[in-house]
Amino acid sequence: MAGSTFGQLFSVTNFGESHGPAIGCVIDGCPPGLALSVEDIQPDLDRRRPGTSRHVTQRQEADQVEILSGVFEGKTTGTPIALLIRNQDQRSADYGNIAVQFRPGHADYTYWHKYGVRDYRGGGRSSARLTAPMVAAGAVAKKWLNEKFGVEFFGCMTALGNIDIPFQDWDYVHQNPFFAANKDIVPALEEYMDGLRREGDSVGARLMVGATNVPVGLGAPLFDKLDADIAYAMMGVNAVKGVEMGDGFDVVQQRGSQHGDEMPPSGFKSNHAGGVLGGISTGQPVVVHVAIKPTSSIRIPRESMDVHGNAATVETFGRHDPCVGIRATPILEAMLALVLMDHVLLNRAQNADVRVTTPVLHLDSGT
Amino acid sequence: MAGSTFGQLFSVTNFGESHGPAIGCVIDGCPPGLALSVEDIQPDLDRRRPGTSRHVTQRQEADQVEILSGVFEGKTTGTPIALLIRNQDQRSADYGNIAVQFRPGHADYTYWHKYGVRDYRGGGRSSARLTAPMVAAGAVAKKWLNEKFGVEFFGCMTALGNIDIPFQDWDYVHQNPFFAANKDIVPALEEYMDGLRREGDSVGARLMVGATNVPVGLGAPLFDKLDADIAYAMMGVNAVKGVEMGDGFDVVQQRGSQHGDEMPPSGFKSNHAGGVLGGISTGQPVVVHVAIKPTSSIRIPRESMDVHGNAATVETFGRHDPCVGIRATPILEAMLALVLMDHVLLNRAQNADVRVTTPVLHLDSGT
Amino acid sequence: MAGSTFGQLFSVTNFGESHGPAIGCVIDGCPPGLALSVEDIQPDLDRRRPGTSRHVTQRQEADQVEILSGVFEGKTTGTPIALLIRNQDQRSADYGNIAVQFRPGHADYTYWHKYGVRDYRGGGRSSARLTAPMVAAGAVAKKWLNEKFGVEFFGCMTALGNIDIPFQDWDYVHQNPFFAANKDIVPALEEYMDGLRREGDSVGARLMVGATNVPVGLGAPLFDKLDADIAYAMMGVNAVKGVEMGDGFDVVQQRGSQHGDEMPPSGFKSNHAGGVLGGISTGQPVVVHVAIKPTSSIRIPRESMDVHGNAATVETFGRHDPCVGIRATPILEAMLALVLMDHVLLNRAQNADVRVTTPVLHLDSGT
Amino acid sequence: MAGSTFGQLFSVTNFGESHGPAIGCVIDGCPPGLALSVEDIQPDLDRRRPGTSRHVTQRQEADQVEILSGVFEGKTTGTPIALLIRNQDQRSADYGNIAVQFRPGHADYTYWHKYGVRDYRGGGRSSARLTAPMVAAGAVAKKWLNEKFGVEFFGCMTALGNIDIPFQDWDYVHQNPFFAANKDIVPALEEYMDGLRREGDSVGARLMVGATNVPVGLGAPLFDKLDADIAYAMMGVNAVKGVEMGDGFDVVQQRGSQHGDEMPPSGFKSNHAGGVLGGISTGQPVVVHVAIKPTSSIRIPRESMDVHGNAATVETFGRHDPCVGIRATPILEAMLALVLMDHVLLNRAQNADVRVTTPVLHLDSGT
Repeated sequence: MAGSTFGQLFSVTNFGESHGPAIGCVIDGCPPGLALSVEDIQPDLDRRRPGTSRHVTQRQEADQVEILSGVFEGKTTGTPIALLIRNQDQRSADYGNIAVQFRPGHADYTYWHKYGVRDYRGGGRSSARLTAPMVAAGAVAKKWLNEKFGVEFFGCMTALGNIDIPFQDWDYVHQNPFFAANKDIVPALEEYMDGLRREGDSVGARLMVGATNVPVGLGAPLFDKLDADIAYAMMGVNAVKGVEMGDGFDVVQQRGSQHGDEMPPSGFKSNHAGGVLGGISTGQPVVVHVAIKPTSSIRIPRESMDVHGNAATVETFGRHDPCVGIRATPILEAMLALVLMDHVLLNRAQNADVRVTTPVLHLDSGT
Repeated sequence: MAGSTFGQLFSVTNFGESHGPAIGCVIDGCPPGLALSVEDIQPDLDRRRPGTSRHVTQRQEADQVEILSGVFEGKTTGTPIALLIRNQDQRSADYGNIAVQFRPGHADYTYWHKYGVRDYRGGGRSSARLTAPMVAAGAVAKKWLNEKFGVEFFGCMTALGNIDIPFQDWDYVHQNPFFAANKDIVPALEEYMDGLRREGDSVGARLMVGATNVPVGLGAPLFDKLDADIAYAMMGVNAVKGVEMGDGFDVVQQRGSQHGDEMPPSGFKSNHAGGVLGGISTGQPVVVHVAIKPTSSIRIPRESMDVHGNAATVETFGRHDPCVGIRATPILEAMLALVLMDHVLLNRAQNADVRVTTPVLHLDSGT
Repeated sequence: MAGSTFGQLFSVTNFGESHGPAIGCVIDGCPPGLALSVEDIQPDLDRRRPGTSRHVTQRQEADQVEILSGVFEGKTTGTPIALLIRNQDQRSADYGNIAVQFRPGHADYTYWHKYGVRDYRGGGRSSARLTAPMVAAGAVAKKWLNEKFGVEFFGCMTALGNIDIPFQDWDYVHQNPFFAANKDIVPALEEYMDGLRREGDSVGARLMVGATNVPVGLGAPLFDKLDADIAYAMMGVNAVKGVEMGDGFDVVQQRGSQHGDEMPPSGFKSNHAGGVLGGISTGQPVVVHVAIKPTSSIRIPRESMDVHGNAATVETFGRHDPCVGIRATPILEAMLALVLMDHVLLNRAQNADVRVTTPVLHLDSGT
Repeated sequence: MAGSTFGQLFSVTNFGESHGPAIGCVIDGCPPGLALSVEDIQPDLDRRRPGTSRHVTQRQEADQVEILSGVFEGKTTGTPIALLIRNQDQRSADYGNIAVQFRPGHADYTYWHKYGVRDYRGGGRSSARLTAPMVAAGAVAKKWLNEKFGVEFFGCMTALGNIDIPFQDWDYVHQNPFFAANKDIVPALEEYMDGLRREGDSVGARLMVGATNVPVGLGAPLFDKLDADIAYAMMGVNAVKGVEMGDGFDVVQQRGSQHGDEMPPSGFKSNHAGGVLGGISTGQPVVVHVAIKPTSSIRIPRESMDVHGNAATVETFGRHDPCVGIRATPILEAMLALVLMDHVLLNRAQNADVRVTTPVLHLDSGT
């Protein structure tokens, strides 16, 4: 395929650019009979929306979604669901001074080399704004998965720069702009971000995302592995540079006698695996960790060149997130939901029997 | 697709089980005119082959490949290249005692739940033996990429359990069974593995893999991102639990002013990105890090159950790698080659112009 | 894929229903740099548009297309081109009396059996209205193919019911509502259609469609055959029940000494093949014939049942084409253009060399 | 995909050339638990096999199939089923005199133009010999479809050149080398073929193929239409130039009041549709008609050129079928089985409910 469609059987075709007339997607393969309205989709879009705190880009977008097709009398019909979001606050003028310069660490350089085209308007197709339609599509998947199997999604930021964010309670995630599952650390995070903004710099972040009540048996033993598809989905989100399943890079130092999750008849005793063994879901919670790099659009001057090959000093003003990780939690949840949804449909085709049977025990390694 | 085909335009369909009559693959989409014989493929298979040192499984397999189609008068014809490897040393009897038990951390549990089938013979389809056909296919991709663009692949182990392996020289990689780019550490690694074997335990490892002279412009801005496809390929290799591009999880603590690779007209000053920006190759070396979990088939007794739901204590004898990371370097190289090959063909379709133009500077972050 | 995407590398994802808010498509894989505006697309939509003569449905739709993405500063950027057409004249009330009845010969019966959903509004997703986005996408493909290779598309009606329409001149096609390449027969066709309308019945038609200056070498020897993909595209158009390449069913009675197109160095002496040999284009004109069945929505009472399994006598009023073949020419041209476009991109990937080299001689068998 | 894989969820990847070491395929996506052995596959291969009467090619091939993977303890495991057929009677010498000449009507011309490769050995990849692996794969699909839903396949020749073959009884199909459902016409067919062979010429044929007990609801309303996929499959078989569903080209002259199959609660009264409405199966028998062109390899001299562009007179000796339609019935049945199998799996994914509910009434139009 040509690179704008995600998923095989629950497939989402994404379109639009950051500063074009509109963005959106077409969801093909949604089963018929799901009650669906804008109210099911808008809340996740609102969680991802820019301009909601001083710590994210100040671009004002309502991100109001319109359902163009696929729903009749309040229910999905099995036909494609087209979702449309009109762009509203495209101040392209802001980008005038970087129209011909390449920002170090930014996609503008590679896009230009590939296509021979320079869409200088806020990153064009490479903008993180294109995750909005995925969040909308993910909301549809989440609803279906929840109604059918009780799947619940969770996600939070676990580190911002060099500040680790210890887990306290999922309830806190919705009570601060950082998606931190910790209320005591919020003032430190705010102070840190305020400092960054003053310096005109940016920083990375670490996030955790996962799901519970995932049916056992999703995935395949060779390719179409559930964890491989999750890695593909996560690494495909803007700025992600690392993906871990379960214990991730900690496994390097682990012994087999320590890593393999024991499973007496009473249930798994731990979840080092992160819910996937041999590419197939165990029924335990799926747990993923993700590393997000610092934004490349910063005010601090950087050495670069322009499209003519001349030396250039790049200073990026305009409206940018100083830490793209802050708004990334709903995006990662949506991508995970899309992967799980696709695999449930694949599993139906392959085995026609999707069950939630395994006692669900551990969100993490249990140690 | 049904889950045994890798790649869109250079697509490899894998077949076989660890203890069936044969394993192999069909490569579809190889361009015509490539000089190709068994001699081009066998060396990489030999690097991956079991039984070559006391530190890996003692199963004896010549892994001799036969080319069944797609080559005429010594050259590829553009038709599918079928590669066949007959299994020779299938001592299924070794598995008798675990025929009905689930090994903690092993794919047998999830495979059984998905398909309702129990192929107890050495992991069946979930066995790492199925990476052999991918290594064979990867050798074809490597040859074509090298002839067309001079692409070179590299890979080595960077940590074995808690022993870090500092980089000394690529030449050393071929001189020890661990694929360590370091000659002084080899005795320590041997001693460590000997101890593990005595204990009947296993351990994880960390590997680096990459490529130089990668054409600029491979990948796409949304899905079909080069790094997303690499993450998919790597996470799909048996036992991999984490994947990093370039600086990987280190980006969490980095500032934008530090991470973004400056690029004056004289060339990139560093390679924090690992050769990919916005999902598209920069022309710098592609650099990937991978975490491999400890083998789940160990002698140390573990608490589990059997297919009837009864409690079981599992002790796995038979022939197993105590660290699957040891033989993983050629596998990871092959998977990277397959991803790059597919993207070169995709790029031809999308842009008909694949170039190696960028000064290649840094294998790693340059710091 | 989930069934609403056409094409592998130039892929068109279609959405919408006949009486929903909008219809449209997302074109993914269009090469960058093509000058494109609404003016390039609208003319073909206008050729297909309903309500343009008394011989077609009287539904009034401007079918005005909006380009939502993929074009910047008047040129394609390589990103998805989203095209939107708002529905305007959805008089669903017209369908009230058939909301629960199945029309003999209509898709409503099978759609209901598959999805368990009844979208009684003008055929819902099964409506021929969904060909409008394909015509729009085809216009993009036509423009690119014409600029790159000089490909020209042609099409006409060759029979309406039992009236054969002998070929006179391509110029006439645009001068009558039947797309007849014959001016003298138009009065007979009009009289015939007026009679049909009075009777409340419908009739079938036969059409020819093709292209000249098609590059040699498009297609593949096994699957992805150019003629197989054309057959798929044509049989997928609403109401099509038969597809022929070149001489089609006439080959049954032909001898090999008569059918095989001789090709001295001066060029092909005939085109019985219809431009494809062994699944690959010869460079001669591609020639396709198509049979279109009579519309199933007619006023004449027919024996059927309703969704409850009760007997029903169905008489369909509302606005329907008495011969869907009348507006089908631009649809078939568009589908052919999409197939050729996809194959040109596939060929680039496979061979990177797409040429128009063969002397183009014959539109038909040359006899 | 690269053009050698057929099907999305029950996908068959074909490999080999007419005169290479072996041909075969990999079936991916076969559900687990199907009892399968060589005995299930060989009979269909034997029906297609060359050398079984004087009216077909005299090449001697046992076409003995070996199952390399995917079956354990007599049952499918859900993993890929690799099937291997070694070529035995490759007398490439026979082709010496046409090694550089293009046969009018043959694929050698287009293959050479596409790939720049000349595989003169019996058509190479373009040979009808490559249908053998599809027949083998089709046998697997047939068995599963029959066990699950009672699907039965039928097929016969309905015309050989200008001799129409009226239907008498299905039993006769297996009693003559022509697959004629008529015993009285066999002597005339034999005399006709003997005359053709003496003249060194070839001729076309018309075949019918179909299936009963097809579940209702297979297919999709836009693309992935069942009839479009059937047209793709049939037109993809060597030498096919026309495909009809149900009444096919007869619909051109039909009225809507005559074509639409009435369906009172007691069941369909006819089957003009050929078992598909709006791209989705009705539950009635699927009925397909196919036109097969005369073989292009004939002894009668024909005007052509060679690879150097020089004029050439081509006379093809060697071993060829004077009418490829004679052995085509099992091939068409297999392709239909593969399409239905894929759609059953797709339907499971989309709706998870595949039923055979409709009274099955008519093999043909019922008039």
